Amino acid sequence: MKKLKGSLLFAQSGGPTSVINASACGVFEEAFKHSEITQVLGAAHGVVGILNDELYDIGKEDPAEIRRLLGTPSSALGSCRYKLKDYKVDETDYLKILETFKKHNVRYFFYNGGNDSMDTCNKIGEFVNAHGYECNVIGVPKTIDNDLYGIDHCPGYASAAKYIATTCMEIDLDARVFDKGMITVIEIMGRHAGWLTAASAVATYAGHGPDLIYVPEVNFDLDKFTKDVEEIYKKNGKCIVAVSEGIHDAEGKFIAEYAVANAKKDAFGHVQLGGVASYLVSHLRNIIDTKYRFIEFSLMQRCASHIASKVDVEEAYAEGCAAVKAAVEGKSNIMVGVVRKPGAKYETTIEEFPLSACANTEKMLPAEYINEEGNMITKAFLDYVTPLIEGEHSPEFVNGIPRFAELKKILAE
Amino acid sequence: MKKLKGSLLFAQSGGPTSVINASACGVFEEAFKHSEITQVLGAAHGVVGILNDELYDIGKEDPAEIRRLLGTPSSALGSCRYKLKDYKVDETDYLKILETFKKHNVRYFFYNGGNDSMDTCNKIGEFVNAHGYECNVIGVPKTIDNDLYGIDHCPGYASAAKYIATTCMEIDLDARVFDKGMITVIEIMGRHAGWLTAASAVATYAGHGPDLIYVPEVNFDLDKFTKDVEEIYKKNGKCIVAVSEGIHDAEGKFIAEYAVANAKKDAFGHVQLGGVASYLVSHLRNIIDTKYRFIEFSLMQRCASHIASKVDVEEAYAEGCAAVKAAVEGKSNIMVGVVRKPGAKYETTIEEFPLSACANTEKMLPAEYINEEGNMITKAFLDYVTPLIEGEHSPEFVNGIPRFAELKKILAE
Repeated sequence: MKKLKGSLLFAQSGGPTSVINASACGVFEEAFKHSEITQVLGAAHGVVGILNDELYDIGKEDPAEIRRLLGTPSSALGSCRYKLKDYKVDETDYLKILETFKKHNVRYFFYNGGNDSMDTCNKIGEFVNAHGYECNVIGVPKTIDNDLYGIDHCPGYASAAKYIATTCMEIDLDARVFDKGMITVIEIMGRHAGWLTAASAVATYAGHGPDLIYVPEVNFDLDKFTKDVEEIYKKNGKCIVAVSEGIHDAEGKFIAEYAVANAKKDAFGHVQLGGVASYLVSHLRNIIDTKYRFIEFSLMQRCASHIASKVDVEEAYAEGCAAVKAAVEGKSNIMVGVVRKPGAKYETTIEEFPLSACANTEKMLPAEYINEEGNMITKAFLDYVTPLIEGEHSPEFVNGIPRFAELKKILAE
Repeated sequence: MKKLKGSLLFAQSGGPTSVINASACGVFEEAFKHSEITQVLGAAHGVVGILNDELYDIGKEDPAEIRRLLGTPSSALGSCRYKLKDYKVDETDYLKILETFKKHNVRYFFYNGGNDSMDTCNKIGEFVNAHGYECNVIGVPKTIDNDLYGIDHCPGYASAAKYIATTCMEIDLDARVFDKGMITVIEIMGRHAGWLTAASAVATYAGHGPDLIYVPEVNFDLDKFTKDVEEIYKKNGKCIVAVSEGIHDAEGKFIAEYAVANAKKDAFGHVQLGGVASYLVSHLRNIIDTKYRFIEFSLMQRCASHIASKVDVEEAYAEGCAAVKAAVEGKSNIMVGVVRKPGAKYETTIEEFPLSACANTEKMLPAEYINEEGNMITKAFLDYVTPLIEGEHSPEFVNGIPRFAELKKILAE
């Protein structure tokens, strides 16, 4: 528990979300309140900016633009997917990071990201402490995948879930409008966990959603899938399916890889892999003669801040603030995260978790949220997800379009 | 100019939009105010419902649900793509329609749709009048394509444009976030006209949009395109491109068809045609070694009522009301539509156009909206489009998701 005086450094990592900047806003606004924090810095492109000593001086930004981060998607400082090696194997990067920390007197370091980022954050904390450099290191969670250990849910998930539920309802109305047959396959992000795809069930229970939902927690059987679709199509003349990009067979082979046999390589030797929805549609085309559409929610599901969850934005902001408070109190090597209180009413607290436990662990969809047949999400999931998607938060709109934060990004000397 | 007493029949046709139901709401609410209208009917699946005598009794619906149509996308009554033959060639369908009209004493008929629907509406009007049956027939415009004759813009276009501009801004923030190279190709609807794709330029002029925009009004040259992308990628390490699905070469061949040579046929002999964005990405993969994403806005661009334009919703509603008023005054064989008054301030009137002139004509993007190189939209387009996308209209949200209209759909006897 070290009380320190010096700079605060905040960095964003991994895939964008609608609310990663809301956490940044929380960190920055809270940091400005504390006299122990002498300068507020933001790394360009996560740990890469720290390695290259590219740090923005957040104190030089207009406070109104910092506030606009609440409604601005993606990572305003830039992100990266750089994975640090273990410092026991190679400490080159860590020495560079330590150098940057020393140069700017960084005594508070915050890394905002998912599993990999918590691992990076943990390693940096261990290394600088082991080298006698005093710095409080805190992880701020973020991932639309919702697969982070210990916490009830990750900032970013709820806004993606709200986008998915709402868009599935809209697509349902569209895809069932004609007097002709149609099969629609919707592909939703999630390589390992089905949390995002499960959100499509919110639409189903509202009367306008997918007939079938497949998540990576259940081994995918192409024949069973085909029978499921045939049965519903025969009855309704329409069938809407939602699948996780990461569905795989009993041998663990991704269904998207089934298309590889036919896939061409490009001039650089990369396989041109289509999506799983595209593959499933081309498979069904040989069995059911009807009109098809495959739809990928692609980047939209993680950056549609115009339909962000109010609860999500507020929690992401609060977690940013809580991280600063904890660090100033002298805490280190922890991740902050939301825990839900027991009871029917949605109430949460922000708690602290040891970083070492958060790094590289994954939280899967529990079995009770998946039906026995493995082709639908149960109603029990609604109790979990509904409070998270409550309320609408949107950026300010000017001339009919969002007015996102515009940072000046002035480098600290 | 015939003043008539009898039933009103409203039908929806063609592809869904975010506001076709707002016009329905306008027609229904206005109709209930007029004593000349003895019953308000809605056809199931457009003209198909008229042929099959499947008409819903709108008077039996809850007025609160009719009001909710304002925020409900797609066609609440169901749609169709049925094209009537010329009655001089085959009058079978027309006789059935006349029979349904007589059975329900339909004296006011409204068809809500695009080019094809105005043609259908016109033919029905001509036929029943020629058979001595008095009925006032009015077209209500609708199409996200914005290609309808005479009017300033079509209801449905502005909401699609607002979705496209907003989503392009969000994607821009996401696709430029990493410190690595990336090329993103976005595919937007529009087989013949580039109005929808042009809306992506709103994002560009706001500082967060595509670097290159290609519309069907300009012949597409694959080599020129490749050079355009290479140049921008070399400079920025990122390139975002928006293309209309209908871009074609100088011979008129769709670029999407270029993939046909490699395309397999399914068991029913249909060619499995990929989208144009997918084709362009697979083409570029052989030339520039980087990360790629292709994104299709698919059904979302026409049914995302959660981000509908307020101006669009209000105009669609007003056109529904205006159509009823015109019909009750005894007008027939016209389409109502919005005309913009001259001057800097956005002001409109709803005017009437002969149906015969509206049928099967197409309005293209004017040359002044396209730059000389044919790879960007000019700033002049902003003056046209900005007033249309002004204001946000959303459905009511309950428990975090939209509460769409739920009609009882009770068949009229």
